[in-house]
Amino acid sequence: MRQSKLFTKARKEAPADEVAKNAKLLIRAGFVDKLQAGVYTYLPLGLRVLKNIENIIREEMNGAGGQEILMPSLHPKEFWQTTGRWDTMDDLYKVSDASGRENALGPTHEEIVVPLVKQFVSSYRDLPFATYQFQNKFRMELRAKSGILRGREFIMKDMYSFHRDEADLVAYYEMMKGVYARVFERVGLGERTYLTFASGGSFSKYSHEFQTVTPAGEDTIYVCDTCRVAVNKEIIADQSTCPSCESGDLHEETAIEVGNIFDLKTKFSDPFKLTYKDEEGKEQPVVMGCYGIGLGRILGTVVEVLGDDKGLVWPRAIAPFAMHLVEISSANTAVHEEAEKLYRELSGQGVEVLWDDREARAGEKFAESDLMGIPLRVVISEKTLTEGKFEIKDRATGEVSMVNRAELIKMCAMK
Amino acid sequence: MRQSKLFTKARKEAPADEVAKNAKLLIRAGFVDKLQAGVYTYLPLGLRVLKNIENIIREEMNGAGGQEILMPSLHPKEFWQTTGRWDTMDDLYKVSDASGRENALGPTHEEIVVPLVKQFVSSYRDLPFATYQFQNKFRMELRAKSGILRGREFIMKDMYSFHRDEADLVAYYEMMKGVYARVFERVGLGERTYLTFASGGSFSKYSHEFQTVTPAGEDTIYVCDTCRVAVNKEIIADQSTCPSCESGDLHEETAIEVGNIFDLKTKFSDPFKLTYKDEEGKEQPVVMGCYGIGLGRILGTVVEVLGDDKGLVWPRAIAPFAMHLVEISSANTAVHEEAEKLYRELSGQGVEVLWDDREARAGEKFAESDLMGIPLRVVISEKTLTEGKFEIKDRATGEVSMVNRAELIKMCAMK
Repeated sequence: MRQSKLFTKARKEAPADEVAKNAKLLIRAGFVDKLQAGVYTYLPLGLRVLKNIENIIREEMNGAGGQEILMPSLHPKEFWQTTGRWDTMDDLYKVSDASGRENALGPTHEEIVVPLVKQFVSSYRDLPFATYQFQNKFRMELRAKSGILRGREFIMKDMYSFHRDEADLVAYYEMMKGVYARVFERVGLGERTYLTFASGGSFSKYSHEFQTVTPAGEDTIYVCDTCRVAVNKEIIADQSTCPSCESGDLHEETAIEVGNIFDLKTKFSDPFKLTYKDEEGKEQPVVMGCYGIGLGRILGTVVEVLGDDKGLVWPRAIAPFAMHLVEISSANTAVHEEAEKLYRELSGQGVEVLWDDREARAGEKFAESDLMGIPLRVVISEKTLTEGKFEIKDRATGEVSMVNRAELIKMCAMK
Repeated sequence: MRQSKLFTKARKEAPADEVAKNAKLLIRAGFVDKLQAGVYTYLPLGLRVLKNIENIIREEMNGAGGQEILMPSLHPKEFWQTTGRWDTMDDLYKVSDASGRENALGPTHEEIVVPLVKQFVSSYRDLPFATYQFQNKFRMELRAKSGILRGREFIMKDMYSFHRDEADLVAYYEMMKGVYARVFERVGLGERTYLTFASGGSFSKYSHEFQTVTPAGEDTIYVCDTCRVAVNKEIIADQSTCPSCESGDLHEETAIEVGNIFDLKTKFSDPFKLTYKDEEGKEQPVVMGCYGIGLGRILGTVVEVLGDDKGLVWPRAIAPFAMHLVEISSANTAVHEEAEKLYRELSGQGVEVLWDDREARAGEKFAESDLMGIPLRVVISEKTLTEGKFEIKDRATGEVSMVNRAELIKMCAMK
């Protein structure tokens, strides 16, 4: 894409009303816009990152046998009364229509997915399966001040699995731990993300969170130095050793929850009477698990963890573009022509290139390029033209090298 | 995909509470589920169709220079007060948070996109551009009885274009007529869809709708037999000739509006003071156009127009799968093995195949296959195995032919 055509622009100053690093950088770089506290617009650059994260999660959920659907946001009150959560969930948005019928704006979808699948499940032969969606959630956060990490409106991947018994759920649940670890690895958070034991599980005494260590986190976790898992605050209050290897070497960290998995057992099957007939024709309750990841939260966490004093730093797998082609032409048409030639060649090979074809000072262009955080920056100027080489900078390491055309094309082809 | 793994199932009976053909067929075939009037879940098969429609629209909008973004649903009351629509729009859902702050649930996004782009537009050099989104809209329809044609919650593609003057808008607007015609052509509605003159334009006295002729339509249009455009009811009340060729040969049809384009001029730029500086440094109002398409409405209209007494009929470009591979095995493992071999071969070549690998009677399988409407049905049975040929049926024409493996693979490769 030609940067001169992009309708958004980077800003010199961070917005005064944002305290979170993720929001400050994303707004300055033109990736998101704040409509109100906890409610953001994804601009063209930010949406490209969000879609890359979505596609990685989709591949992994499909790989885990998940079937994608899309459920609505307007949930009839009765469904939420069935589970009792109409009255107990504090952050539920409620909306009435002209006839006075009340709806919840869905903050999660157990109340919708269970009656839905009930229509299709009658026999043990219909189990197991899992279904998921990417969908916009609403939660009435009163103090939304963490940028896109904690929104009043946010896109989540929520998956629900359905099983004939606890053993089948446990096997799936254990597999999903690996699937989740792979998602966080692929989006660039692998190194700092820990499987974290939390309370609230139905079988064992644990449920599991995935926590990424960052000073921006609102949670405290205790990382086991021996086996690379962690426990949360509630668990550490009950025990001082690692639940996985029993080591006592746990150190405290600040972290943010980027995903969670729950063994719901029959918590939602029971109120909706979701049952199946077993081999003997006996009605049995369906056993459930659920698995959530917030897409904006992953995006914001990557900014918190990898962003530096110059701006955003995107891992290649989720970057809005693979390469930022910066021409420093100032009326030199040969430079502009060379830039266009390279842009067309790389684009033709399927490399996603943002071409800064604007007339602006070199210093300003470089500062903006650092702010936007595209993994590779290539400079074409009178100097590089004379030398017959391209100047390449790796945004993450800051390393600069001069390469010829063949080397450049090879670097772009690598994933 | 193996049909035995699909968690949804076709139903023998249409739901009793639906009157619309689109909803009856889509629910029976397991493509959508009704949560409440005007609020539907897209099931795996239905979501595949919706995504195909989305991708066609995305390609065309990107081709028209549109930059994709994603705006939120929670709109602060003040923005809607600025245009006066907080009080005048009857079907606006309103929701309050715990602190009493009021929000609209966005039914359209002029109130959001104009203040958004105002941050980035200052000079004539920043114009023109267009931005669009695929986003979930809310409208408080009191009588939602047209299935997915008219929802209380529905996904829309809404694009907004920004120009320095009327001439530039008119040029873009005229180009968009062609882009829209191509979208309807590609999703399979080309033949029956008419550019329809409606009232409400700012420059000329016209705005434009795209209307698809079907008995399910809620609108009446008058089609010009000479030049293939139409006029709506309001226009025909004022004039009895075609506004395009001045012919008087107009015939009445029932139709559904599948898209619309408006020249907004400065209707929304004015209240938000969206201006730019021209070459002389003088402040000028930005001139706007907007362009909408409802995705569920396209999907439902295709069902209304193409569906027959046996069920759904999908055009190949938006079909959930290209081929329905139906094995009639009843304990014949050679048939099952041959089906699996073909399934793997075609899938490996990127052909989207739904393989009915379930144990069921042939008649039931054929009826369900017709109901689901996948363009090509291939039957593998003892008979076809003996003959060394495959039986292929074209769902739309009902034509059956026997082909060998090479011919079959060639048919699948054709788009």
